[in-house]
Amino acid sequence: MRYHKIPDETIRRLPVYLRGLLFLSEQGQKSISSRDLADLVVVNPWQIRKDFSYFGDFGTPGVGYKIEKLAKEIKRILKLDVVRKAALVGIGNLGSAVLAYSGFKIYGFDIAAAFDNNPKKIGKKIGNIVIEDVSNLQVLKKRKINLAIIAVPQDAAQQIADALVKASVNGILNFSPCYVTVPKKVKVITIDIAMDLARLPYYMPAS
Amino acid sequence: MRYHKIPDETIRRLPVYLRGLLFLSEQGQKSISSRDLADLVVVNPWQIRKDFSYFGDFGTPGVGYKIEKLAKEIKRILKLDVVRKAALVGIGNLGSAVLAYSGFKIYGFDIAAAFDNNPKKIGKKIGNIVIEDVSNLQVLKKRKINLAIIAVPQDAAQQIADALVKASVNGILNFSPCYVTVPKKVKVITIDIAMDLARLPYYMPAS
Repeated sequence: MRYHKIPDETIRRLPVYLRGLLFLSEQGQKSISSRDLADLVVVNPWQIRKDFSYFGDFGTPGVGYKIEKLAKEIKRILKLDVVRKAALVGIGNLGSAVLAYSGFKIYGFDIAAAFDNNPKKIGKKIGNIVIEDVSNLQVLKKRKINLAIIAVPQDAAQQIADALVKASVNGILNFSPCYVTVPKKVKVITIDIAMDLARLPYYMPAS
Repeated sequence: MRYHKIPDETIRRLPVYLRGLLFLSEQGQKSISSRDLADLVVVNPWQIRKDFSYFGDFGTPGVGYKIEKLAKEIKRILKLDVVRKAALVGIGNLGSAVLAYSGFKIYGFDIAAAFDNNPKKIGKKIGNIVIEDVSNLQVLKKRKINLAIIAVPQDAAQQIADALVKASVNGILNFSPCYVTVPKKVKVITIDIAMDLARLPYYMPAS
């Protein structure tokens, strides 16, 4: 199996499938057809079958996919089969939502550090995380945290990205509403929480 | 041009391109090559060219795409060429982040109503929006607001979705970490803010 040949678009959908599979597994379900999985995660059934074919087909005709086995395989492909520590920078509304969000755990992420520049927030404890001074981002290197989430205002995002790269972070999820420039060896995914709303009207009936 | 033939995956990427184009336009740029646009929005250049080919190719060899014209066309396809009012339900951390987020405006969205069930929040003004009682969601029908964003806790999401559907909402962006069931005529997009982090490790070098 040559994983490096999996298209980016398939990689983008794997977490979508994984999420659905973990949800079903939680409900006690053991197997599912591509059609039912498609309905749940809102992807075409043929797309699901095609995506799964890239890493070997786990479906059994008439039975469907074995949920647990498939979830495990997707986790392995996405390198989510270990617990990964992530740092969060910016504890405003969105950062607080990220900290409170239970959804990171299901993918194996442990938000293990949080940073802000507001003296009123630094030292404060949220859950079991103490907010640290953003000027100390370099501690991430020593703590071997190489994933970070940026949730700072637009005009601070690039500066934070630079500091994270300097601290040996090589994967950044950027929630700030702007693009950041990083060296090629660092992977950035920029999220615009409005972007998904932007494709809703296309599917809505004229009113 | 038969727009109904545009694949869902292309529709999903159009807001990604639109966002990049609007960013460039803001910077005063007039045209861009598919390669440079690809670098900005992190999509393959061939994918961009293929996606644009579905609705006629706006590129000129050696010059590239005319940014303003292309942005306008994408807005038209996505039905974003009018201002659309949206309601927000749930004013916790994530809901507050949504309310404060400037990024909805660039796609023509106007968050025109906000709802919560917390008596301490109802009546409070955020920006120019007064938070209303979530038990009054039916007012959306009269106000002709047919788009809604759900940012409530998991165990309330289905109930809110039901109330929105009853209020004639036919497009829902769901930020709650669960799936909601709605009639076929209603389009739901469920967002998991952790999901994009889940594909980062795949691209990160082994460490």
